[in-house]
Amino acid sequence: MENIETYRACIKKLLAELGQANLSDDGVESQIIMDTEHDHYQLVHIGWQNNRRVYGCVLHLDLKGDKIWIQHNGTEVEIAPTLVAMGVPKQHIVLGLHPPYKRQMTDYAIV
Amino acid sequence: MENIETYRACIKKLLAELGQANLSDDGVESQIIMDTEHDHYQLVHIGWQNNRRVYGCVLHLDLKGDKIWIQHNGTEVEIAPTLVAMGVPKQHIVLGLHPPYKRQMTDYAIV
Repeated sequence: MENIETYRACIKKLLAELGQANLSDDGVESQIIMDTEHDHYQLVHIGWQNNRRVYGCVLHLDLKGDKIWIQHNGTEVEIAPTLVAMGVPKQHIVLGLHPPYKRQMTDYAIV
Repeated sequence: MENIETYRACIKKLLAELGQANLSDDGVESQIIMDTEHDHYQLVHIGWQNNRRVYGCVLHLDLKGDKIWIQHNGTEVEIAPTLVAMGVPKQHIVLGLHPPYKRQMTDYAIV
């Protein structure tokens, strides 16, 4: 349980940093979405730029049990090694954005 | 303030109904994401199907002040009229997924 709180804190720190780095231009909002009850976490870009729609999830992380699932990563940051550097063991990170058969070839958790 | 609570309840009801309607096939999860602190609400499909990635936000609604913003709608349901039918006045709904100049041509709120 202690781990889970630490992992939640890591995810929030990461989102805050990335949201800051992606500071919005005029008309584009950088939304940090945190569903702390169901443990879904996202960074979304959203708005209008010269009458063109900007909409996209940039990063999506879930906490399932005691594991962090990387569901989507449209940033330039390698999220899994970043989480490891923050102290999360590889066996508590699932590369959800890779198919299960590929996850077996890594040191990260499979599910 | 009373309105806002009612609107939150409408959004949650809508997401629950649509999440139910989109009940996931094997390997694909229908995630309802609710950030009730910052008032961001989403329905996201996520998973793997025959080693192909399924990832996408199906619906994204925000509550800003006393207005519901429709940010993204990938469902077959017309969300704005559905909200109106639930009792939300048109002037409290913003079609965020349309550019501001187009919103002026509707009875819905512009911002």
